[in-house]
Amino acid sequence: MTGSDDDPRPSAPGSVPPRFAETRLDGQPVFQGALLDVRRDRVRLPDGATGVREYVVHPGAVLVVPVLPDGRLIVERQFRYPLQRVFLEFPAGKIDPGEAPEDTARREMIEETGYAVERLIPLTVLHPVISYSTEAIRCYVGEGLREVGAALDAGEYLEVEAMSVDDLCAALDRGEISDAKTMTALLMYVRWRARHPVGTP
Amino acid sequence: MTGSDDDPRPSAPGSVPPRFAETRLDGQPVFQGALLDVRRDRVRLPDGATGVREYVVHPGAVLVVPVLPDGRLIVERQFRYPLQRVFLEFPAGKIDPGEAPEDTARREMIEETGYAVERLIPLTVLHPVISYSTEAIRCYVGEGLREVGAALDAGEYLEVEAMSVDDLCAALDRGEISDAKTMTALLMYVRWRARHPVGTP
Repeated sequence: MTGSDDDPRPSAPGSVPPRFAETRLDGQPVFQGALLDVRRDRVRLPDGATGVREYVVHPGAVLVVPVLPDGRLIVERQFRYPLQRVFLEFPAGKIDPGEAPEDTARREMIEETGYAVERLIPLTVLHPVISYSTEAIRCYVGEGLREVGAALDAGEYLEVEAMSVDDLCAALDRGEISDAKTMTALLMYVRWRARHPVGTP
Repeated sequence: MTGSDDDPRPSAPGSVPPRFAETRLDGQPVFQGALLDVRRDRVRLPDGATGVREYVVHPGAVLVVPVLPDGRLIVERQFRYPLQRVFLEFPAGKIDPGEAPEDTARREMIEETGYAVERLIPLTVLHPVISYSTEAIRCYVGEGLREVGAALDAGEYLEVEAMSVDDLCAALDRGEISDAKTMTALLMYVRWRARHPVGTP
């Protein structure tokens, strides 16, 4: 029944070996809130037994590593309610229905940081929580920044600052950056930057 | 009302600046399944307005970067139902009620990979999805591995293999590793290993 109309999961990118495959028997929404869409499916396990899988259906998100001409990166400090803490993060946001991911990236950059981005370079794709969410985050390097003024959504409170890559890596090693998407994007950016020095095409 | 008995979020680690703080007004479980515990809270926003926050309450998890004497790392291939794909991952698992995280790490290593771990060295702590889960993952480097035979949970299907750090980083750069906890732990391990060469104490 995989791929039926009420199956909210992404299409399988290729054949899954039968020794792994879990086949959907049926399923239903168990909570549909303002933010979260939670499903519970009954599945056929590889050994023929039945099991239950519960997960969040997510529209996908984007993240931008915004690079200033001097090489510093723009980051945000934002309170995150579930963990009751302020986190240091790269700008990121959910893809709106029908929106192209690069448009989401440009929109979120302006809304959250007040910078328009000239060039978006695909950096990596990450799945933040493969055990209980369909979420995928497309990460971009953003270059050619131009200040245009921020326009935060109602209910969004954050502060923007610029930090050098060295300072960000030091903060990472001190445990001060623990948001997985930001850790991953920062370290993938360091790998990418080693192959693409500032000032080269 | 933060910190009341029915508030499942972690305690605040320090004072949150008032310009960021979101104060819990009330809240309730909206879905309590076999795997997921989902809450919806009403909150007071910094500007005095009220808002809604929905999130998963998670007991926390551990991850181990298991290092063989020859420097190769043990990884797993496992089907992840929400994304309908097999992922390459480091061994990881949820902390049982009352369990010390290091005990979880040792238990999951034996259950999933069949290796007992002599030494667990704290590597980093990451939060996989700060916008809608309380989950934190404590990551360890695991050394002094001894094969004792795996004992998978019912309904768990995975394959274990050993790969060099170079091969894992090449897979990462090809986009073949996209699980955020595994990406982060691998890259943090590479940083850690540069300061702790194999064979040094």
